[in-house]
Amino acid sequence: MTPFFRSLAVIGPGLIGSSVLRRARETGTIAETLIAADTSSRVLERVRELDIADVTTADLAKAAQADCVMICVPVGAVEQVAGQLLPHMKPGSILTDVASVRGQLGPKITAILPENVAYVPGHPMAGTEHSGPDAGFSTLFEDRWALLVPPEGADQNAITTIEKLWTLCGARTKILTDDEHDRICAMVSHLPHLLAFTICDTADNLSDELRAAVLDYAASGFRDFTRIAASDPVMWRDIFLANREALLGTLDRFVADTQAMADAIRKGDEAGIISRIERGRAIRRTLIENRQA
Amino acid sequence: MTPFFRSLAVIGPGLIGSSVLRRARETGTIAETLIAADTSSRVLERVRELDIADVTTADLAKAAQADCVMICVPVGAVEQVAGQLLPHMKPGSILTDVASVRGQLGPKITAILPENVAYVPGHPMAGTEHSGPDAGFSTLFEDRWALLVPPEGADQNAITTIEKLWTLCGARTKILTDDEHDRICAMVSHLPHLLAFTICDTADNLSDELRAAVLDYAASGFRDFTRIAASDPVMWRDIFLANREALLGTLDRFVADTQAMADAIRKGDEAGIISRIERGRAIRRTLIENRQA
Ligand SMILES: NC(=O)c1ccc[n+]([C@@H]2O[C@H](COP(=O)([O-])OP(=O)(O)OC[C@H]3O[C@@H](n4cnc5c(N)ncnc54)[C@H](OP(=O)(O)O)[C@@H]3O)[C@@H](O)[C@H]2O)c1
Ligand SMILES: NC(=O)c1ccc[n+]([C@@H]2O[C@H](COP(=O)([O-])OP(=O)(O)OC[C@H]3O[C@@H](n4cnc5c(N)ncnc54)[C@H](OP(=O)(O)O)[C@@H]3O)[C@@H](O)[C@H]2O)c1
Repeated sequence: MTPFFRSLAVIGPGLIGSSVLRRARETGTIAETLIAADTSSRVLERVRELDIADVTTADLAKAAQADCVMICVPVGAVEQVAGQLLPHMKPGSILTDVASVRGQLGPKITAILPENVAYVPGHPMAGTEHSGPDAGFSTLFEDRWALLVPPEGADQNAITTIEKLWTLCGARTKILTDDEHDRICAMVSHLPHLLAFTICDTADNLSDELRAAVLDYAASGFRDFTRIAASDPVMWRDIFLANREALLGTLDRFVADTQAMADAIRKGDEAGIISRIERGRAIRRTLIENRQA
Repeated sequence: MTPFFRSLAVIGPGLIGSSVLRRARETGTIAETLIAADTSSRVLERVRELDIADVTTADLAKAAQADCVMICVPVGAVEQVAGQLLPHMKPGSILTDVASVRGQLGPKITAILPENVAYVPGHPMAGTEHSGPDAGFSTLFEDRWALLVPPEGADQNAITTIEKLWTLCGARTKILTDDEHDRICAMVSHLPHLLAFTICDTADNLSDELRAAVLDYAASGFRDFTRIAASDPVMWRDIFLANREALLGTLDRFVADTQAMADAIRKGDEAGIISRIERGRAIRRTLIENRQA
């Protein structure tokens, strides 16, 4: 089978980017030539050692020559990197990115798009708390969703191409608007991370003695919360800021629900406590049925 | 090697109780005779099928004849069950319970203790979201903490005996006051559960469309929170009510920390966001070093 693209360039071969490269390397179905570009020579060196690209380069203009160029750098750097790539991209080629938050990214990049270059970003709902080229693995996207957020009027062929790319990575795809995307992510990802960081913060603020005890006895609950709190601070700062509006709105609703539960506990409202807990269990059951748990 | 007790009675062979019985059965080091008592004939039937006790009975007076009597019923029923057992216990025997919240339980049971019967409760910091005799397993307590909370003036030999019992179950032991115990558990277990239930509740309150999306895309964060939200509602209602004071105090601090993080996000205070996230990572690293993660 001929690979899907002649060439695919991954800009920023970290957790996400190197997972795409590994997948492409392992299956041989994605691209004939794999290009990895990064500003860091250490990252490129590591990519060569891992042997997950045919070409490594620090020159974005060179990487921009690929049929498909995939920006996998942190959210805060996507716009700037797109600005460096776009003037060098070939007619008929496609730019995509994997940024976890959309915000104004879509309109901003669309505004600087050359003619005959398509832009179809997609966010893979998969990840771990690790980062860098060593953190990736080829099955990261398997059975996960890739949420495509094509700007209005994006070329239909380019959309189909990026759908196919993610399917080749093992993912299922869905098309959403930027706004839908950001509100969903605030609930399923950004709020949980914010709470995980905060519960660790609350524990950290305890008296030394209690803090030591919390660390000793972390099994049963606390531990599950801290796993995702190990994630990269800069990445999460950028995400929180980029999705500030949807996140703070979701957080407000969460705090109101928390206060309602606290009131039920304070008043000894047994039925109120139970009904809140039951709602949580219902969600959990549906997740298990959806094979997401 | 002679087993440690001649007889051990487990009242309420559910998740915790049946795990103790399984451990005793498998190792043969804990008791010569294993007694399981429960109000439910279905539970006793299941214990016989699983063959994890030598004697099964619905008669608490009979179970009370054991050298060591371990109450493993839900928190809300411990005091009443103790009241039924104590008049029938032998001089020199020991009563223990595994209740997850201490509150006023210690003083209340101490007040009705016959002479020559010791009371040394201990809370194993181990569990799953499942319950009942089928949920138990013999390694549940391995490398976990059992927090002993002997009432003031409790017999030192009895304390040593219960320490040894938990050691034979694979656990490490620590002695705490009721108050220390309850504040620590509010932080490491009760608050995480309250938040997990609430985040599911918040998700459940979304519009149908968004709610469906949340269920589809639950990977990356949300899922980790919901695992513990599958726990038994009645048990958690009882725990929240029994530990209401410590729990609401801890929750207040958590909500304040959440609001501080929200403020930092609202104002775009990059350094403030990072420092809060960093504190969470520090806790996580210590957990990994302590082999609790
Ligand atoms: N992690 C997740 O869970 C997850 C999930 C879905 C989507 N995403 C999205 O995926 C993207 C990357 O995340 P990741 O977790 O893969 O991060 P990562 O492992 O840190 O990888 C990012 C890579 O980009 C490089 N880089 C940074 N700035 C650059 C620039 N200006 N030009 C070229 N390369 C640059 C980094 O090199 P240095 O290390 O030298 O800076 C690193 O190799 C983000 O947009 C994120 O929102 C992440
Ligand atoms: N689950 C955890 O994570 C965990 C961790 C540490 C400690 N604990 C503590 O362990 C205790 C038991 O929890 P668990 O999770 O093992 O619960 P579980 O699996 O529901 O088991 C409780 C057992 O007690 C029986 N029971 C209820 N009321 C009774 C009564 N009045 N007299 C006799 N038997 C009665 C139940 O029978 P029916 O099913 O017929 O009611 C069931 O067999 C609680 O005090 C809890 O705080 C739990």
